[in-house]
Amino acid sequence: MRQPFITENFLLGSDHAVELYHGYARDLPIVDFHCHLPPAHIAADRRFENLTQIWLSGDHYKWRLMRAAGVPERYCTGDAPDREKFQKWAETVPQTLRNPAYHWTHLELRCPLGVADRLLNASTADGIWRQCNEKLASPDFSARGIMRQMNVAIVCTTDDPTDTLEHHRAIAADESFAVQVLPTFRPDRALAIDSPDVWNDWIDRLAAASDIDIADRYDRLLDALLARHDFFHAAGCRLADHGLETFWAADYTPGEIASAFRRLRQHKPLPAEDAAKFRSAVLYELASMNCGKGWTQQFHFGALRNNNSRMFAALGPDSGYDSIGDFEVARPMARFLDRLDRAGRLTKTILYNLNPAHNDVVATMLGNFQDGTIPGKMQIGSGWWFLDQRDGIQNQLNSLSNQGLLSRFVGMVTDSRSFLSYPRHEYFRRILCNLLGDEMHRGLLPDDIQLVGPMVSDICYRNPATYFQFPARATPKPPQAQ
Amino acid sequence: MRQPFITENFLLGSDHAVELYHGYARDLPIVDFHCHLPPAHIAADRRFENLTQIWLSGDHYKWRLMRAAGVPERYCTGDAPDREKFQKWAETVPQTLRNPAYHWTHLELRCPLGVADRLLNASTADGIWRQCNEKLASPDFSARGIMRQMNVAIVCTTDDPTDTLEHHRAIAADESFAVQVLPTFRPDRALAIDSPDVWNDWIDRLAAASDIDIADRYDRLLDALLARHDFFHAAGCRLADHGLETFWAADYTPGEIASAFRRLRQHKPLPAEDAAKFRSAVLYELASMNCGKGWTQQFHFGALRNNNSRMFAALGPDSGYDSIGDFEVARPMARFLDRLDRAGRLTKTILYNLNPAHNDVVATMLGNFQDGTIPGKMQIGSGWWFLDQRDGIQNQLNSLSNQGLLSRFVGMVTDSRSFLSYPRHEYFRRILCNLLGDEMHRGLLPDDIQLVGPMVSDICYRNPATYFQFPARATPKPPQAQ
Amino acid sequence: MRQPFITENFLLGSDHAVELYHGYARDLPIVDFHCHLPPAHIAADRRFENLTQIWLSGDHYKWRLMRAAGVPERYCTGDAPDREKFQKWAETVPQTLRNPAYHWTHLELRCPLGVADRLLNASTADGIWRQCNEKLASPDFSARGIMRQMNVAIVCTTDDPTDTLEHHRAIAADESFAVQVLPTFRPDRALAIDSPDVWNDWIDRLAAASDIDIADRYDRLLDALLARHDFFHAAGCRLADHGLETFWAADYTPGEIASAFRRLRQHKPLPAEDAAKFRSAVLYELASMNCGKGWTQQFHFGALRNNNSRMFAALGPDSGYDSIGDFEVARPMARFLDRLDRAGRLTKTILYNLNPAHNDVVATMLGNFQDGTIPGKMQIGSGWWFLDQRDGIQNQLNSLSNQGLLSRFVGMVTDSRSFLSYPRHEYFRRILCNLLGDEMHRGLLPDDIQLVGPMVSDICYRNPATYFQFPARATPKPPQAQ
Repeated sequence: MRQPFITENFLLGSDHAVELYHGYARDLPIVDFHCHLPPAHIAADRRFENLTQIWLSGDHYKWRLMRAAGVPERYCTGDAPDREKFQKWAETVPQTLRNPAYHWTHLELRCPLGVADRLLNASTADGIWRQCNEKLASPDFSARGIMRQMNVAIVCTTDDPTDTLEHHRAIAADESFAVQVLPTFRPDRALAIDSPDVWNDWIDRLAAASDIDIADRYDRLLDALLARHDFFHAAGCRLADHGLETFWAADYTPGEIASAFRRLRQHKPLPAEDAAKFRSAVLYELASMNCGKGWTQQFHFGALRNNNSRMFAALGPDSGYDSIGDFEVARPMARFLDRLDRAGRLTKTILYNLNPAHNDVVATMLGNFQDGTIPGKMQIGSGWWFLDQRDGIQNQLNSLSNQGLLSRFVGMVTDSRSFLSYPRHEYFRRILCNLLGDEMHRGLLPDDIQLVGPMVSDICYRNPATYFQFPARATPKPPQAQ
Repeated sequence: MRQPFITENFLLGSDHAVELYHGYARDLPIVDFHCHLPPAHIAADRRFENLTQIWLSGDHYKWRLMRAAGVPERYCTGDAPDREKFQKWAETVPQTLRNPAYHWTHLELRCPLGVADRLLNASTADGIWRQCNEKLASPDFSARGIMRQMNVAIVCTTDDPTDTLEHHRAIAADESFAVQVLPTFRPDRALAIDSPDVWNDWIDRLAAASDIDIADRYDRLLDALLARHDFFHAAGCRLADHGLETFWAADYTPGEIASAFRRLRQHKPLPAEDAAKFRSAVLYELASMNCGKGWTQQFHFGALRNNNSRMFAALGPDSGYDSIGDFEVARPMARFLDRLDRAGRLTKTILYNLNPAHNDVVATMLGNFQDGTIPGKMQIGSGWWFLDQRDGIQNQLNSLSNQGLLSRFVGMVTDSRSFLSYPRHEYFRRILCNLLGDEMHRGLLPDDIQLVGPMVSDICYRNPATYFQFPARATPKPPQAQ
Repeated sequence: MRQPFITENFLLGSDHAVELYHGYARDLPIVDFHCHLPPAHIAADRRFENLTQIWLSGDHYKWRLMRAAGVPERYCTGDAPDREKFQKWAETVPQTLRNPAYHWTHLELRCPLGVADRLLNASTADGIWRQCNEKLASPDFSARGIMRQMNVAIVCTTDDPTDTLEHHRAIAADESFAVQVLPTFRPDRALAIDSPDVWNDWIDRLAAASDIDIADRYDRLLDALLARHDFFHAAGCRLADHGLETFWAADYTPGEIASAFRRLRQHKPLPAEDAAKFRSAVLYELASMNCGKGWTQQFHFGALRNNNSRMFAALGPDSGYDSIGDFEVARPMARFLDRLDRAGRLTKTILYNLNPAHNDVVATMLGNFQDGTIPGKMQIGSGWWFLDQRDGIQNQLNSLSNQGLLSRFVGMVTDSRSFLSYPRHEYFRRILCNLLGDEMHRGLLPDDIQLVGPMVSDICYRNPATYFQFPARATPKPPQAQ
């Protein structure tokens, strides 16, 4: 390299961008209000044996790239030794030029891992492996150690309604750990009726967790869900999350739903139309509960999942065989939101689309349900999954800006299973500052740092810190405006 | 501000762009061939009491942003005093950074309102309110005064077939007013059969306006529509406009349509399939009339309207509760246009898509029906509604350029209800010149101002001034080529 | 012009881009693995009488632009003299500013035609006509002469299964001609059951070509297709190509297909559902044959063809009346590919989408079926047809980069009917180098020419030269890495 790769001013293409990032974004705490970290690892303050354990294990983004590079499955999800798996990843990295993984990789190596002088490839792999593993052995690189290092203030995990939340309680009870770790209510399994046997098992677990005898009574299903909703709220939960292909907004009658539920409880599948009605009913009730508690509800929609049935049989879900769907979005989404709004049951909502062709559809949908009660009540989520890269983030910011209020945006989430993913916030902040700085530089925005700077701080920290109304301990004091 | 915001060279990022804009675009008259100005206000040369009356009243773009900022409805569409409504808008403006409204607002304040030294916000609101209201009291800021100031040559309003066009006649008769104000035939209500009662009232009004006893005879409906089409033509109308979700192109027989019409006249709703046939028939006949007179027909399609039923009940349509749909476009559009072409009934046509994901679908559709009779016969309309911003305009220009002939483009329209919206033409011209100038600068276009400059003038003025074949008085002499 | 238009560094906006293009891309041979050149012209080493014959004849891109410019059909596809047709094109060219045709035109005039000092327009037409016709009369400008000049190593034509491949054999037998010209198996007509009479004629020709008595037996259809597949393989074919609106992936039983085939052989049309099943079956079998031989299969999908029925009746297909469709893509594509993968019958595959709104859908689909056996096994094809322009190419490169491995991309094809289209490879290489060079310049890629340069050479030459496993003579030795 003629010069080091990721420098202090990485991605910052103008003096204005540099000023915005270093003055208004860089030092702000992280509110990571949507992630998939295992609470057990935080509770136990897990140490990681080596770089493969913390970096490759469970990372289907990396597996996909390795497979595309011709790396056999054994080195992705199989039984190859950790060191060999790491070598295969290191060999793949130079092939990922222009993929976000190339940036993530070197951002994460630089911070928190402290490797900024080399690029990862086959020949640097060994040195990096040893250097990082040494670091990982120190207390600063335990689960909690990394979170502290990275200046994390709040983390919201993603949890099943049947979860005991014991780890969340343990973490909250430990006053030595200042990061607030809150659960998120993710009741997708209540709608997962395509496999009636699996679904019935879950309903039974829900009955046990809520201590409600659901049997085949739909009203009791709702009671049980509400009981867990209450339980989560008491544990500090302020967000729900729902994963969907597209929105369920069919018309139905109470009788139809009660009868569909009885049929399902007999392990009989529902015809397509009845299934749509059932899902529409349950989703409506869940959204209604979210409103009842003033939570924020998130919808992640548009993924086409488990497309490779051969590998699904071998590895199960979340193994890197998902992609972007092109489902119809606008009409069902409008119907769903309108039904809630009409009933006074539409709470704060964040819509994450996976297909970038829907960015403007979603960004304009928000305006139909902004009701003047809460600034930025309806939100379009930050670039999700396949869109969690520079182009995807910029396109999301542009659609939001063109169709609504960027200034009210609640900003970035890692959406990650890994403790090393916090540099995604840095990445986002740099991209945001670069976009705004560039437009100040070109005269598209007023050349007034007092006007633009605080907006950056709002998006990167103050908006999410206030929007979600986290329980008291959660909200650290906002830093003074600069 | 370190420097004033909107300067002489706003948006012009290269010397070439500056030369193109100031040399070939800036001083050209405006042909605003699609807008929603009330002709009564032009006829009466309305004066505006204050800035809220001329700027916020009826502007659902601004209401949407205010709602997103948490402003209660009372200050948008409600009964708050005008000064308070203005204050709420002023407080919202700094939150709209990167939204086109931030640019529109300061462009309009600068010209015609003459406020170029301050940005609008809570603290500058009072001074701007007083300064502008003073201006509005002067004759230069009447409806006609503003149009004269802004160098408007031709304006086409949007009118219902039952309209008497009395205001258009009054304006045309007044030789002291040089701006040509022509009607546009917008017969959407003939297809609005979802509410049979409302639709029947309109059919009765159409019967009265045309002096044709429609009763329940479909042939007489067509006679009545044609009578009004003739009437509009005599008043100088040369454009039709049609608002659609997607194109109607079902197969039908005359008997089916006659029978559907009888049923509708009995106030009975049509089943979905019959409704599609009826709409297909009426739309075909209307397009056929447009061809018969050599008019240009416009299609605005892809909006999902009135998504908030609660607010629709309170405020009616066009209140800011519409968004972008993702309907299928290509096949029905191709069928519709082909049917007309095959019958020799396809006239000059402008297609405005609302979903930007359809830009290339539409831009490539044009080529299927360019028939060598009229340069640029088939057009993709300028960025419409939610796409009426820098990204939207640029994307439209790029799709048109890549798939067809930018040089034949008929250019920008305000599509506005407000007399203050003419700076949108300035905005468009700056964006166009910046795009072309930048490509000259980078060697993507020949560095030849004699080649590129006249193309700019064509798009900004000469193409629309000739393409529509406006009646004689309408077309001012084109300025000499530079 | 203040300076010549297409210079040495055309499209190269940074020093890095210049270094990449001239050092790693410019001089590489061309592997044009998908085109529509007529093999008879190569076999006969055709000379072209004049510029209209080689440049305008059969070029529906140019016809579309001429029609849009108001040029009567007589000068496009009609009986106007060649010189007049050329004049009309020359008059159209300045109107195509920003259309890719403006770039293609002047790239092709510059190389191979050697006209770099003038832009084509009405007044330069005569000189250019005479100068180029003189060139065309020399041996360097025969079909083979141009291919030699342009440094073409391998060409894959597109051929019907019933083709005798006599011209391919003749070319291969001629040792004086070093360019390898291989056939591609394009069995679309086997699925073209919408016109049963035309389809039956083709089935009969297939029976004759394969010497298999197909009669009304579906198993024999498959035998006949396989016989021709074998025959193509023996002639060096290593690619198949399939043109589709969207993917066929319906469920079916063998009995249903056998019966559908019998019905079709009686010249009776199939109901829509049966037609979908039949197409699904045949497409699956063809893809299975492709896998059996280790070929690469290409799918070109998303075109809406023959939209103008009036002109279709007059001119037939491929006359410039096609455009981009908005069919659903993700679900049927996933089903189709999964079915093959599950059966172990999914070979190397290139997916060319026509609708740019599907770029990320397709680019993410690849990852579901990358199986670690072959680097870059699943590919998204280079910008096809309406996307074969700078924006289209860049968007394709960006989607591929964001969602997969750009480094494994097999790169550009002309997809052209013309011997003058090879500069499209130059255009692509310049765009690729500009994109990468710009990101090196801005610090988004490491500033390391040893890292990025070889990737450029891979994409432009080494990847396609190895990926397809062309038969021995086909693969010239790769140039030494620089």
